[in-house]
Amino acid sequence: MKMSREKLMEATRRQMPSSRWEHTLRVKETAVELAERTGADPEKAEIAAILHDYCKYWPEEKQREWILRHRLPQDLLQFHKELWHAPVGAVAVREELGVDDEEVLNAIRSHTTGRPGMSLLEKVVFLADYIEPGRSFPGLDEVRRLAREDLDRAVLKALDNTILYLVERGLKVYPLTILTRNDLLDKIPQILPKEESH
Amino acid sequence: MKMSREKLMEATRRQMPSSRWEHTLRVKETAVELAERTGADPEKAEIAAILHDYCKYWPEEKQREWILRHRLPQDLLQFHKELWHAPVGAVAVREELGVDDEEVLNAIRSHTTGRPGMSLLEKVVFLADYIEPGRSFPGLDEVRRLAREDLDRAVLKALDNTILYLVERGLKVYPLTILTRNDLLDKIPQILPKEESH
Repeated sequence: MKMSREKLMEATRRQMPSSRWEHTLRVKETAVELAERTGADPEKAEIAAILHDYCKYWPEEKQREWILRHRLPQDLLQFHKELWHAPVGAVAVREELGVDDEEVLNAIRSHTTGRPGMSLLEKVVFLADYIEPGRSFPGLDEVRRLAREDLDRAVLKALDNTILYLVERGLKVYPLTILTRNDLLDKIPQILPKEESH
Repeated sequence: MKMSREKLMEATRRQMPSSRWEHTLRVKETAVELAERTGADPEKAEIAAILHDYCKYWPEEKQREWILRHRLPQDLLQFHKELWHAPVGAVAVREELGVDDEEVLNAIRSHTTGRPGMSLLEKVVFLADYIEPGRSFPGLDEVRRLAREDLDRAVLKALDNTILYLVERGLKVYPLTILTRNDLLDKIPQILPKEESH
């Protein structure tokens, strides 16, 4: 089965409170803009953005079952459930909505932690979720600025913010977040002098 | 072969500049004190402290060869060479000095990054290296204070400091550092409210 964009939107809207659906619509607009500016596929960016939080409001126990049943990384269960909805969502929209575009599924799967070797589409969706105009938290303006110049540096800064937030609060850091950040640093070594001069 | 403590000291002293040997002697004193206070074996703490930087001043190329030849974690080669001397040192003191006490070798191996499931002796040597009286850097006083109360919290704080230092400077974080920190957080959840109230 192939659902139209409108049917995907309706199916997703029903999974979440209206405030989260409004966030989703802002991520959709932001993702299309970022895609058009950077050369990613705007239609895939739009679909991935619509679906990215598909199961974020599913009960914890249901998300846990999907992690176990679909053999998703089991170490997720040792970390905050906020990390679960991205990998579960990628499986869920395939199973429940028939979405089978691997690029779209990857963008859903990696939208919270990134992953080493992220595609352009994955960076677009990751950043759209982080910078959509309804967001407001420390360090966000810098990521918004970088997203207009260099997606890699913008993703790196967003990951830095997440790691600093977690370490300062005594919370665990998911190792994949570190692997994604290390991968970006290997690819953009030219940022080192700039960072070190702070 | 079994070398006396004096022969181990003489063999180690010859591997490094005198300033580093003076650091080693301060780590030795600090490790014995910490061991006596916390119930770790003071003699093993002393030997591990003497040996902990055995190959820190070996040429980079020689350390790289040992990593390759002795099948140490090959991902080390993708990270700063500061991370190499601990795992290389554990192999080197076994091969060159005949040290075969696994507890001592583990304490040498984990003294830079820690590891999940660190023993009491490993925490003592890790912290002695971090807090010896010649050290001076931001956040150190807090680790010294915690080391008098709770070794787990002291190791955690030292790892936090390292991660913040690296992230703020745009430098890669070795994943084992994150795994060690996550393991400690799983074991001391009671610190979370305290940390979050900062």
